[in-house]
Amino acid sequence: MTHEFDLIRTFFQPLSQVATQDIGIGDDGAVLSCPSGQQLVVVTDTMVEGVHFPLDTLPEDIGWKALAVNLSDLAAMGARPAFFSLALSLPESKNHQAWLKAFSSGLRHLAEAHRVPLIGGDTTRSDRLTVTVTAHGWVSAGQALRRSGARPGDGLYVSGYIGDGALGLMAVNEALDAGAYAGALQKLNRPEPRVALGGLLVGLASSAIDVSDGLLADIAHLLEASQCGCEVDVSAVPYSQAMQSYLAENAQAWALPLTGGDDYELCFTVPAEKEALLKERTRHLNLSITEIGRITAGTGAVLKNAPKGVQTLEHLGFQHF
Amino acid sequence: MTHEFDLIRTFFQPLSQVATQDIGIGDDGAVLSCPSGQQLVVVTDTMVEGVHFPLDTLPEDIGWKALAVNLSDLAAMGARPAFFSLALSLPESKNHQAWLKAFSSGLRHLAEAHRVPLIGGDTTRSDRLTVTVTAHGWVSAGQALRRSGARPGDGLYVSGYIGDGALGLMAVNEALDAGAYAGALQKLNRPEPRVALGGLLVGLASSAIDVSDGLLADIAHLLEASQCGCEVDVSAVPYSQAMQSYLAENAQAWALPLTGGDDYELCFTVPAEKEALLKERTRHLNLSITEIGRITAGTGAVLKNAPKGVQTLEHLGFQHF
Repeated sequence: MTHEFDLIRTFFQPLSQVATQDIGIGDDGAVLSCPSGQQLVVVTDTMVEGVHFPLDTLPEDIGWKALAVNLSDLAAMGARPAFFSLALSLPESKNHQAWLKAFSSGLRHLAEAHRVPLIGGDTTRSDRLTVTVTAHGWVSAGQALRRSGARPGDGLYVSGYIGDGALGLMAVNEALDAGAYAGALQKLNRPEPRVALGGLLVGLASSAIDVSDGLLADIAHLLEASQCGCEVDVSAVPYSQAMQSYLAENAQAWALPLTGGDDYELCFTVPAEKEALLKERTRHLNLSITEIGRITAGTGAVLKNAPKGVQTLEHLGFQHF
Repeated sequence: MTHEFDLIRTFFQPLSQVATQDIGIGDDGAVLSCPSGQQLVVVTDTMVEGVHFPLDTLPEDIGWKALAVNLSDLAAMGARPAFFSLALSLPESKNHQAWLKAFSSGLRHLAEAHRVPLIGGDTTRSDRLTVTVTAHGWVSAGQALRRSGARPGDGLYVSGYIGDGALGLMAVNEALDAGAYAGALQKLNRPEPRVALGGLLVGLASSAIDVSDGLLADIAHLLEASQCGCEVDVSAVPYSQAMQSYLAENAQAWALPLTGGDDYELCFTVPAEKEALLKERTRHLNLSITEIGRITAGTGAVLKNAPKGVQTLEHLGFQHF
């Protein structure tokens, strides 16, 4: 085992630049100053090899994604990412310079793009690679986006394209031609957390969630927290060209993008009187924002334009609704 | 697998009571208010079964210890524990009511004693139990205790007894009579983080560290950060009755308590002019505070009253000094 202190110094210390009055890696803990008028948002996500990503995932992609899924959670809360800690449990087979260099460079790439320093963590031995990131952000006091604010009449929106993560995972699992699924694989391995969108939605969206469990499952979480229902127009859900091509040839797989996970898009609701403002604020984001339904006073999700016989989430096997 | 949401609701939601303006478990992240004039302290520690605790450790002890080692890090920074998140990677063999109930009750026991709510986290499948806690505390701005403030002439102190964790681990590994080592086993499995002491040391200690890697190793960390040396009087290091008895019969094991880990005591330095105040402030703590040496202008640690031929850490095989 590379000695823990050497490993931290070589690969992780370079990611740890914090403000001068603050303390990063190297003490028993990190010390951070709180901007006045802000609340702290804390999110934690663990990725286990073979469970949350395929065993042959590149180390640079693992590094990127471990942080990306956490920044996606911060985005769903409307928080500006501020700093993160990393708990890395490393099997002997990966405890070498090449793996650590690649892992830390993927992590660094995304961390620098969002200017979030690594403030500390823990490095341990294990026989299964396990990466836990706890990310912290700031949001104006009382302004955090939540799952529970959707109200009847609100529009239901989603960012980007849905289903490419699931398509990418299928391509890996079934060893399909990587070239033909490059976009989907990129989405699976290097999701772009919707941080800028999350920030713009503060004061605008009535509720938000990031799409990680699958679009319909995450809509279900949102409705459960908000205690309301919705209509989802399945034909309005935005798909990439690759997804459209795939569904054109595999019509029976229509539910794959709706139930597959790993989208890391935002799903959110906006009161009717603010929908024009949504369009205006998000026009320059270079990210499609699509209305896919509307919140209702009911308690379930009604699926419009789904194949015959499928009108509710229960028809797709959802239990928790 | 118990469904993740059920598992969280049943076993972890009860630990999540936060202040009314804050948001705990149940959204994409937790939202916490920052007390004015305070800095945030963040610490992370991972425990992997078979690496950081023996495979047959009781689940309630694992739950306790996973939080305790983090509160110990907060104590070393002088921070008041505020809240924590939990990333639990759970093998199928432990994914049942009895194990989860015991684990969460041990965790809860310590969390309630220190009034720290669980604010969120992640629960994943794995084939090796891995528990990562990220704990957060508050400290008056600019007042955090650090490793780097020791100066020549400062007294070197340690709390409690040293070596019982190592003695307990030896008793487990060598299957010694548990009854005869009950105190040491208690120390190994249920360490008491020195939170009250850490708070009292703010404005008093010039540096501090928690003793987790072994007393001499942690002194070495402290000296390295402070860029100074020290004399340690080995005969002054405080041992429990059990440790004294063990050493009386195993004189060759004299270095065990000095190099073994899992003490979770605080080691700290106090400027000479504040040593009387230290005595006064800590008198009512019900915790022994022992002077074991003094900081010097050198760059190494000189061991006094050690067995013949051992005068420095290098003689004990320390590389990083």
